[in-house]
Amino acid sequence: MAPDPSAVALLAELRHRGWSIGTAESLTGGLVAAALIDVSGASASMRGGIVAYDTRVKRDMLGVERDLLEAHGAVHPEVAQQMAEGVRRVLSVDGSPVDVGLSTTGIAGPGSPDGQPVGLVYLGVATPKGYAGRRRVYEGTRDEIRRQATGDVLALALEALVGATQE
Amino acid sequence: MAPDPSAVALLAELRHRGWSIGTAESLTGGLVAAALIDVSGASASMRGGIVAYDTRVKRDMLGVERDLLEAHGAVHPEVAQQMAEGVRRVLSVDGSPVDVGLSTTGIAGPGSPDGQPVGLVYLGVATPKGYAGRRRVYEGTRDEIRRQATGDVLALALEALVGATQE
Repeated sequence: MAPDPSAVALLAELRHRGWSIGTAESLTGGLVAAALIDVSGASASMRGGIVAYDTRVKRDMLGVERDLLEAHGAVHPEVAQQMAEGVRRVLSVDGSPVDVGLSTTGIAGPGSPDGQPVGLVYLGVATPKGYAGRRRVYEGTRDEIRRQATGDVLALALEALVGATQE
Repeated sequence: MAPDPSAVALLAELRHRGWSIGTAESLTGGLVAAALIDVSGASASMRGGIVAYDTRVKRDMLGVERDLLEAHGAVHPEVAQQMAEGVRRVLSVDGSPVDVGLSTTGIAGPGSPDGQPVGLVYLGVATPKGYAGRRRVYEGTRDEIRRQATGDVLALALEALVGATQE
């Protein structure tokens, strides 16, 4: 399997900047981290990731607010934002946060616990310049939904960085 | 892509016991967590995971000893053990550790930083009953090495649990 083209371009951009990246994943469950690490030389920028599948891991490890989770559940744009910003802090080493934090939260199906549609996903990218989030509704199987979300959050990160360059 | 058969059987066994599982991954970089989450109903047991790609994440997040990492690097049987045991603690929620911690550390290539062979991998499974580790040397591409390690650590976990059942 060839590496994801967005992952390749994103890692090249990160290396050019001397920036690091980390992931906070719910429904994609490690696929975003794996897509980055799939690129040879990823270790120059890829610090690591948190698979926060259980809602309590989102809360206790990533610092997503309890009230937010209780009011809206885990599939919400602010949860994606707090996950992406949280992982920048959580993967700090020697007091230095990760430069870019990616997040995914959504419903891969087959069922939906909260009555939200299967395929609803929020993607997030937090950088030192700010935050970019997207709402998506995917069609397909559980696997297809997760793979589309993985590709899209990598593309969103690339867009966020290239946009930041042009500022 | 069909779910990994070991992941399906492992999650069935975990659910039967009311046990949780978490992952601490280096070279597999999220593939083990993704293989578990690929199984419908994984949320009953799968708590989450840490992708500890950077050695400092192994140290700071998972509690792998600094002296061990400095003396032997990250590809070492004791590192695998400390990762598997560490993730049980790190993913605790409400004071309750994860029951089963899986770990992978090794060299996916193409190069090897420490002169150890490409394809050398240590796999670990920590449970309340103890620890089981394996050394493997895989052949193939970077992707093939990571996928073999993913399948084998899931199979090792299943073996460790079924063994524990028979005690």
